[in-house]
Amino acid sequence: MNPLADWRVAAEPFYAPQGGEIELFEAACAARLPVMLKGPTGCGKSRFVEHMAWKLQRPLVTVACNEDMTAADLVGRFLLEPDGTRWQDGPLTTAARHGAICYLDEVVEARQDTTVVIHALTDHRRALPLDKKGELVRAHADFQLVVSYNPGYQSLMKDLKTSTRQRFAALDFDYPEAALEARIVVAETGIDAAVAAALVQVAGAARRLKGHGLDEGISTRLVVYAATLIRQGIDARAACRMAMVRPITDDTDIRESLDHAIDAVFE
Amino acid sequence: MNPLADWRVAAEPFYAPQGGEIELFEAACAARLPVMLKGPTGCGKSRFVEHMAWKLQRPLVTVACNEDMTAADLVGRFLLEPDGTRWQDGPLTTAARHGAICYLDEVVEARQDTTVVIHALTDHRRALPLDKKGELVRAHADFQLVVSYNPGYQSLMKDLKTSTRQRFAALDFDYPEAALEARIVVAETGIDAAVAAALVQVAGAARRLKGHGLDEGISTRLVVYAATLIRQGIDARAACRMAMVRPITDDTDIRESLDHAIDAVFE
Amino acid sequence: MNPLADWRVAAEPFYAPQGGEIELFEAACAARLPVMLKGPTGCGKSRFVEHMAWKLQRPLVTVACNEDMTAADLVGRFLLEPDGTRWQDGPLTTAARHGAICYLDEVVEARQDTTVVIHALTDHRRALPLDKKGELVRAHADFQLVVSYNPGYQSLMKDLKTSTRQRFAALDFDYPEAALEARIVVAETGIDAAVAAALVQVAGAARRLKGHGLDEGISTRLVVYAATLIRQGIDARAACRMAMVRPITDDTDIRESLDHAIDAVFE
Amino acid sequence: MNPLADWRVAAEPFYAPQGGEIELFEAACAARLPVMLKGPTGCGKSRFVEHMAWKLQRPLVTVACNEDMTAADLVGRFLLEPDGTRWQDGPLTTAARHGAICYLDEVVEARQDTTVVIHALTDHRRALPLDKKGELVRAHADFQLVVSYNPGYQSLMKDLKTSTRQRFAALDFDYPEAALEARIVVAETGIDAAVAAALVQVAGAARRLKGHGLDEGISTRLVVYAATLIRQGIDARAACRMAMVRPITDDTDIRESLDHAIDAVFE
Amino acid sequence: MNPLADWRVAAEPFYAPQGGEIELFEAACAARLPVMLKGPTGCGKSRFVEHMAWKLQRPLVTVACNEDMTAADLVGRFLLEPDGTRWQDGPLTTAARHGAICYLDEVVEARQDTTVVIHALTDHRRALPLDKKGELVRAHADFQLVVSYNPGYQSLMKDLKTSTRQRFAALDFDYPEAALEARIVVAETGIDAAVAAALVQVAGAARRLKGHGLDEGISTRLVVYAATLIRQGIDARAACRMAMVRPITDDTDIRESLDHAIDAVFE
Amino acid sequence: MNPLADWRVAAEPFYAPQGGEIELFEAACAARLPVMLKGPTGCGKSRFVEHMAWKLQRPLVTVACNEDMTAADLVGRFLLEPDGTRWQDGPLTTAARHGAICYLDEVVEARQDTTVVIHALTDHRRALPLDKKGELVRAHADFQLVVSYNPGYQSLMKDLKTSTRQRFAALDFDYPEAALEARIVVAETGIDAAVAAALVQVAGAARRLKGHGLDEGISTRLVVYAATLIRQGIDARAACRMAMVRPITDDTDIRESLDHAIDAVFE
Repeated sequence: MNPLADWRVAAEPFYAPQGGEIELFEAACAARLPVMLKGPTGCGKSRFVEHMAWKLQRPLVTVACNEDMTAADLVGRFLLEPDGTRWQDGPLTTAARHGAICYLDEVVEARQDTTVVIHALTDHRRALPLDKKGELVRAHADFQLVVSYNPGYQSLMKDLKTSTRQRFAALDFDYPEAALEARIVVAETGIDAAVAAALVQVAGAARRLKGHGLDEGISTRLVVYAATLIRQGIDARAACRMAMVRPITDDTDIRESLDHAIDAVFE
Repeated sequence: MNPLADWRVAAEPFYAPQGGEIELFEAACAARLPVMLKGPTGCGKSRFVEHMAWKLQRPLVTVACNEDMTAADLVGRFLLEPDGTRWQDGPLTTAARHGAICYLDEVVEARQDTTVVIHALTDHRRALPLDKKGELVRAHADFQLVVSYNPGYQSLMKDLKTSTRQRFAALDFDYPEAALEARIVVAETGIDAAVAAALVQVAGAARRLKGHGLDEGISTRLVVYAATLIRQGIDARAACRMAMVRPITDDTDIRESLDHAIDAVFE
Repeated sequence: MNPLADWRVAAEPFYAPQGGEIELFEAACAARLPVMLKGPTGCGKSRFVEHMAWKLQRPLVTVACNEDMTAADLVGRFLLEPDGTRWQDGPLTTAARHGAICYLDEVVEARQDTTVVIHALTDHRRALPLDKKGELVRAHADFQLVVSYNPGYQSLMKDLKTSTRQRFAALDFDYPEAALEARIVVAETGIDAAVAAALVQVAGAARRLKGHGLDEGISTRLVVYAATLIRQGIDARAACRMAMVRPITDDTDIRESLDHAIDAVFE
Repeated sequence: MNPLADWRVAAEPFYAPQGGEIELFEAACAARLPVMLKGPTGCGKSRFVEHMAWKLQRPLVTVACNEDMTAADLVGRFLLEPDGTRWQDGPLTTAARHGAICYLDEVVEARQDTTVVIHALTDHRRALPLDKKGELVRAHADFQLVVSYNPGYQSLMKDLKTSTRQRFAALDFDYPEAALEARIVVAETGIDAAVAAALVQVAGAARRLKGHGLDEGISTRLVVYAATLIRQGIDARAACRMAMVRPITDDTDIRESLDHAIDAVFE
Repeated sequence: MNPLADWRVAAEPFYAPQGGEIELFEAACAARLPVMLKGPTGCGKSRFVEHMAWKLQRPLVTVACNEDMTAADLVGRFLLEPDGTRWQDGPLTTAARHGAICYLDEVVEARQDTTVVIHALTDHRRALPLDKKGELVRAHADFQLVVSYNPGYQSLMKDLKTSTRQRFAALDFDYPEAALEARIVVAETGIDAAVAAALVQVAGAARRLKGHGLDEGISTRLVVYAATLIRQGIDARAACRMAMVRPITDDTDIRESLDHAIDAVFE
Repeated sequence: MNPLADWRVAAEPFYAPQGGEIELFEAACAARLPVMLKGPTGCGKSRFVEHMAWKLQRPLVTVACNEDMTAADLVGRFLLEPDGTRWQDGPLTTAARHGAICYLDEVVEARQDTTVVIHALTDHRRALPLDKKGELVRAHADFQLVVSYNPGYQSLMKDLKTSTRQRFAALDFDYPEAALEARIVVAETGIDAAVAAALVQVAGAARRLKGHGLDEGISTRLVVYAATLIRQGIDARAACRMAMVRPITDDTDIRESLDHAIDAVFE
């Protein structure tokens, strides 16, 4: 069985381009350059990768990186079985061996041993040494590495090593401008365009508070959540509070500002 | 055997709504939005989830999160058996596979690798990749993720990642107002309504000391404990001291204030 | 074989009540409320639990908590055996399954994953989920959880979580007053009552130094040690020095004060 | 099968010498002195090692060092197999036993236990004790140890022990001067010489910002990336931004400076 | 086979009493009180325990405590064997089960989980619960626990818990006074009494520097080393430098002071 | 097979004595006193041990200590094999059991559990308890423990415990004086005596910079490296730069001073 059968993107994911990112990504893929997507939480990076996987007809293996992930979680490990041990490819190895896009989401969260395993895959060698198995996996022609990186997270404690960072071509992402975001919300939820526009207006208000009490703006996902709740029959103001205010802050002043904004928009 | 048979909520748990939380939760469940419950210790979040599990007729799998919990504790692991290894689903996988509400209590206590495993379950993929098993579990239609979050715990060291937080719609909870809390105490213990009201008065006095020497107010659970001891024949003042003062503080001044309050109420 | 046979308290442990603690504990047990015992080292908390176990005719499983103890040390683990793995209940599971008092001594020393496993046992569920085994152990009707807590240890680094603390009714303990402590020493060692009174006088002098160079007072256990040495034929002053001074301090000034007190009492 | 068959350098890697480094490296190899290559990220150290491996006709085993790498990752370990355990040589042991160049890239990233295992290989003993296997591997006559070291990384926390450092002869590397670098870019991508020269000019501008807001200069690899994208039909300015600016900085001012430089060069 | 056969003290170890410590230790043993020996490095604590083991005709199991020692290192563990797992008693369990003196040298170095395992052995229970094996080992009548403690090591980071400390009767030790120490050196090495006296004089000079540049005085062991080297034909001054100065300090001034003292004594 | 066959020193290692160290070491060995060698990196400590092993005709087991080394790495461990587990002696056990010199190089780098295992081997017991195997290994009559210690590394964080340090007689080492070092270089490389003298002059210049920008002086090993490169036909100045400057410093000023010194000597 094709181990990547599960990882095909079945239907075209809705994606509204912000600039030339589709062409740039296609060029990088054609030249087999690893790509880094940069931008804040929920601005559409993951959706973009899915869209490109669908467009290029390649399976997509997504890994949510975290500080407790080990190199073995990416590369694979030996499992004990009734008749001895069996090697189990990790998601990166599966993608490299069989030809998928491997998407390491929030790569900066991972420990160094995790990020360093990609080195041999990202230079002219395009190979993945499985030291524990004593095998050198040559990457499939369709293998493509993509990582995401949130500049807002960047800190003294956690950053990519220079020698890792300088292995990627990079694309910037940001929240879509208002009209586009409203169209996305309509496309995702089927909500009335006017309501979608109003919700995007609330999100805009919240995003302007970034750095003034809010660490991050409101993602498009949360705007879609609010629209979804409204479609379930919930009052627009309650939906906004539940989906766009309560999840992101406990600060009384900021909650009040946002509640005011909601009341102003949905008066 | 249905692995969730043990996790059915057999009888209707008493729950007195504080606002529109039941309708909002039902709407989120219908739309399959993950839900975050916010509020102080012992204000009824867990009871609310049990009530909703009973109302929606879904099994409830509760996990008390903690800083030593690993992703494997949620997702599952291979066990060594006489005839080789056997995969054991963790509570999150069980809930996702067979269709239960999975309630991650105090999710902020968990390490990042634990919280990050829910990412693929909380976006449009609704899937849980079991990397070690090489399986992609598609969530059952009845699967619903609920987490609780105590804003009072929030610290620089421990907080949810923005990319995790922005996957939830959220509901606020607080201690019930006095008349409602007294009714809860009567319902839980069968105590006289006047005594219940008096106990709630003592709890109210203690909650007003929050931030003035007490980190947290007294939970409804401890009020129920006091009523229970009184029902066992213990003097009301001794019961209040044992159930509502001694557990929460060792500070002599605060103990004295609370003892005064008890004597005033039960004079 | 009953796995709790080893844990029966065979003979009545001597215990002299300080107040209404026996009645309060019995009421809590009857209502199945978890109990927390608070007080300094060696004031009789452990002895009280043994006495209650004997009185209530329940086996007693004692666990000395420490910062390296894991949840598995309490709950149990799989052991490798000739014919595969075998599950070994931990002390908490044994007590819950077969109906014993489980006494977690100095619970605040344990890590959070250890303390959090008691949550489901200490609310209306009264159940212990063995996630690794996929079993939900319903607590036996005779299961009773007791923990001890030394307020003097309380620090910023180590304290019970509020959500743990608010699951217990609590009882205060302190060193017995002098006449009672002397009677205890006589009962334990068979020493002459006058000598016992003199030893208690020395202990009282040391306890007054708590906070003035001594972190903790002298426990009743050390007074019993001194009496024991005297019964072995050791001179009273040498016995006091060996049992009541040398173990607790290396500070020259405090040693001198205490030696003076000994000489004054046994002149 | 020769375990080093995979590690032969098949074709001559393009390498343009900067000074006498080829002769010095050959002399060190002939005398079996371990060699340390010093210089910034992406200045050609790895390429130089590959070139020398090809020139000396020796297999090349490259290991990307990282802080989570253990001594066993270098030396080897026992694996469980159907018929008991089997020893698996690590990359260092493979190289020592069968005669390869072992290249420890960014050796300072590794933990001490990893760096210390090379001691016996780097003095007159030229042997590797496999303590866990109870074997002393005498190094093959063709075994050659090479490590790389980026002086810019040197910190109080991470540095080679003096007793490790004083086991190497060392060679300095830096970015190639402009004409040479342009020739490299042409050789690697087939791009027009004028465009290559322009790209190198941009890289030079960025390297002059090192220490003025940039931690590291732009590596030759990124210049090659930009040329590759241009060869794919991407506009030169967009290619420069994607390959030479976005990957290395999120600072608005620096991005603007670099974008200006790009516009000036490609006006 | 008696597992303690190896641990018998075959010949009478030379021990010169400093005060009533032998009688006090015998009384504590008779009453089964755990004993703590306090004093600086090399003042004779370990020798005293060996002497008492010989005198009381009990096997002696010595454990050098350290911060990496686990509870399992003391209590025991399951070992994998051809026909499954086998339990291996640790040194503490061996001593408790078969009746030996168990001597935990420098107990304060151990982690808390190591020290806490002795709790049940040091109160009236005199039992050791082997939780992993599900066995409760009742201590043999001849089991005696002895620990050593160096007050000079005492720090904020490392100290015994009060609840551990208050389980011991304690004896103070210090370096023997000069005439006695000289006799010890003669007895151990057969050296001339005058030379022994001179060596002890040098040691005394060094001990007076404790706190003035030296952390610890010179142990009797090092005096014996010096005498041993002299007996091997080494010049007294060279022997003193090699055995009594070089091991304890690298400070040029202190070395000079001590060298002067040596020259003065052996002029 | 004799497990120490591999560890014989086959040929006489060249060693030029600096003082009476050979006689003192022989006396300590005869009396079985453990020996500590003190001095800077590369001054000849390891060579001295090899020379003594050859002279005394004993096998030499060398262990490079490091902070990740465990007690098991020294003592041994159980290995899983087709027919169950097999005990594998570690290097210290091998040396103790069969009678070798065990040389723990840079012992202060090891963790405490590693250093503490030598305690029973370094007092009158001369035994090594293998707790995990339940065996007490009596040291062979030829067993001799030697450790090295670099006073320059001594820090607050890493130092030998007093109770470990006071188990050794100690010898000081330093770089050989110039004429002797030149003779060593000639003996090792066969280089012309005048060139050797010139190289030693350069090394002397660098050693005078110790504490003025250099942490450590240049070891004799690096001087030998330079001579070796010259013998391979490399120009003396290039050889000095590659072997004696580049490995030890990246500081521009110090590199310049040293390059000047080289030019002055080899003008």
